[in-house]
Amino acid sequence: MIDALFTNLRLATMVDGYGELVDAAIAVADGRIAWLGARADAPTGARTVHDCGGAWLTPGLIDCHTHIVHAGNRSDEFEARLQGTTYEDIARRGGGIMSTVRATRAASEGELLRQSLPRVRRLLAEGVTTLEIKSGYGLEAATEAKMLRVARRIGEELPVRVKTTFLGAHALPPEFAGRADDYIDEICERMLPQLAREGLADAVDAFCERIGFTNAQTERVFAAARSLGLPVKLHAEQLSDQGGAELVARFGGLSADHLEHVTPQGIAAMAASGTAAVLLPGAYYFLRESVAPPVAALREAGVPMALATDCNPGTSPLTSILMTMNMACTLWRMTPQEALAGCTVNAARALGLQAELGTLEVGKRADFALWDIERPADLAYAIGFNPCRAVVNAGILRAPAALS
Amino acid sequence: MIDALFTNLRLATMVDGYGELVDAAIAVADGRIAWLGARADAPTGARTVHDCGGAWLTPGLIDCHTHIVHAGNRSDEFEARLQGTTYEDIARRGGGIMSTVRATRAASEGELLRQSLPRVRRLLAEGVTTLEIKSGYGLEAATEAKMLRVARRIGEELPVRVKTTFLGAHALPPEFAGRADDYIDEICERMLPQLAREGLADAVDAFCERIGFTNAQTERVFAAARSLGLPVKLHAEQLSDQGGAELVARFGGLSADHLEHVTPQGIAAMAASGTAAVLLPGAYYFLRESVAPPVAALREAGVPMALATDCNPGTSPLTSILMTMNMACTLWRMTPQEALAGCTVNAARALGLQAELGTLEVGKRADFALWDIERPADLAYAIGFNPCRAVVNAGILRAPAALS
Ligand SMILES: [Zn+2]
Ligand SMILES: [Zn+2]
Repeated sequence: MIDALFTNLRLATMVDGYGELVDAAIAVADGRIAWLGARADAPTGARTVHDCGGAWLTPGLIDCHTHIVHAGNRSDEFEARLQGTTYEDIARRGGGIMSTVRATRAASEGELLRQSLPRVRRLLAEGVTTLEIKSGYGLEAATEAKMLRVARRIGEELPVRVKTTFLGAHALPPEFAGRADDYIDEICERMLPQLAREGLADAVDAFCERIGFTNAQTERVFAAARSLGLPVKLHAEQLSDQGGAELVARFGGLSADHLEHVTPQGIAAMAASGTAAVLLPGAYYFLRESVAPPVAALREAGVPMALATDCNPGTSPLTSILMTMNMACTLWRMTPQEALAGCTVNAARALGLQAELGTLEVGKRADFALWDIERPADLAYAIGFNPCRAVVNAGILRAPAALS
Repeated sequence: MIDALFTNLRLATMVDGYGELVDAAIAVADGRIAWLGARADAPTGARTVHDCGGAWLTPGLIDCHTHIVHAGNRSDEFEARLQGTTYEDIARRGGGIMSTVRATRAASEGELLRQSLPRVRRLLAEGVTTLEIKSGYGLEAATEAKMLRVARRIGEELPVRVKTTFLGAHALPPEFAGRADDYIDEICERMLPQLAREGLADAVDAFCERIGFTNAQTERVFAAARSLGLPVKLHAEQLSDQGGAELVARFGGLSADHLEHVTPQGIAAMAASGTAAVLLPGAYYFLRESVAPPVAALREAGVPMALATDCNPGTSPLTSILMTMNMACTLWRMTPQEALAGCTVNAARALGLQAELGTLEVGKRADFALWDIERPADLAYAIGFNPCRAVVNAGILRAPAALS
């Protein structure tokens, strides 16, 4: 029994990276794709038929790397820096990531949810149907758990599938100043086992960098994750090469993220382990970086390239997945097809959801975005425009206005 | 008699470039600001009272440089370039600006309106209440007039004040290949007088550049405009110094736009004549330019700096005034206050509307934007977020949803 038939469509199937089907239709049963093909061959007897008037349909977009749950913003620092205040002065005043940690620790769970929802709604209005959300502004057990509970609640209150990631090893909390290894103990022996018991973390991440944690400390976090059966991913090689890509590949990680400074050895290791690259142009743009991730080498090596907003208040206050696609094309010369694959098939891969999501194929979950566009390249080309006509979650159609 | 009182507000008055008033109210009579000040002192007896719950209110935003009326887009070229096709190949296939000229000539007036409205709606949803629209994709009398009529119709169909600009000297039409001076004759002797008679052009613009028109040709267009009593502005010094800033200053022009390659002499001339600088970060970003306009020198010289989207299909497919503000801050290190002034008080100046618009002052038109933000810097800081709660045109309040 077909629950819904979407017809008079052009499909970007994203199978094998792209794929188009024109004058097409797609049928949904039990929240999954039951059939797709030429409109003339569509099954009959569907309970509901949506004539889509020639619109384009893509898999629902996936934002596979965000810090979207946080309290406060850092526009005051943004303004101070542009008025001439130095980074050192801002740090001395208690600014930077620790100001977000303080605000997030202080916020109640309800307040944290209230502040985060408008950002998420903005993404959903652009066709996002799956969202990864990290902790990492608590840096102690209670707040990390609070952040992940808020992430889960977002998935209950809004039509979006949420994957949570524990990022306790984001920064060193003031309580452990000068004792990074002790904090790693705390993460591995207490925080992570407890969050795993509560089912709050779908994956584990860390920030491996001179200003974050060492390769050896990261490895300890990964070992703890493995012992709990949790997949890993890593903020790797954003500002310098720390061998993070090789490390996460060695653990069979889902993804290595950022990668501006990844080496050929890191790329080879990722290709061998099937670890996806998650590229984050918002942070590159906002920080005015000059070293781009090696897109050509990743492409050549066959590493799946995903794109994400990295939505966070310090280095990427970005809540537009379409702007992310534009930046990847404009700043890094990715093609529009690669950009769309980066927010669909390859983003699914980066979350370990490739069997469920990311392409239009029979059996996959019926999460779609419907677009008023002439061609898929329009999505990456326009800046600040939103041609999303409707979003479909598990077969249920919603207009973008219903999302906000 | 007060028609409407907006109270429980924080005001960014933009008087003298910025200015804040907290715990404030603003009163409207006959579509104009009748009073503003401390909430406790607000006049009584207003017909309507809007409690704004502590929101920020700014002057309605002004996008003072757009080519938003055009047919088709150029995402196919964007994609082809990223897939490795050269500019030369694209030109050989009839791409570039001439493809937009062909599409705009071919479109009926209704079709041109239909294609342009969604782009305009996007701007209005971000608090834009005044919009400049140029012709320049007709390059012959009938299509230039059609574009300007569509611009006027936008101002009738949507709650936005439109100022039109005749940009016949945008590019050389194929019919005049090798005869640029003859085309300038056509503009000065036929097109411009006819459009002026029909009241379709509020100002006159040109593209003074090696790949556009010479300084001498531009001067002839300006002289014709002056003889018809029309103010001038200029696409100046975008790719190279052509003495355009001095030229437009000599004609007492409203603005010189782009200015990446303006000289100190050009800046001095603009300062002396009161000509505004209209900076266009969208084109700078999309073309990956490396020479920024001399923001510090313009600031130092006291030249009013406006910002605009430059919305056009070839070099700035941008329909977000907030993203424009972010780019000006991120890429050029303008301050958030300067960015907001660039879309309010200085943009009004660039359109010759400073007596009417651009600040919150008694007697000015009651065009406002209401924002759910903590501080005005949030507008320039966030990327792809839209905190616009409502827009007020001549005292009439609308929710952003009502704009689309
Ligand atoms: Zn991140
Ligand atoms: Zn322009």
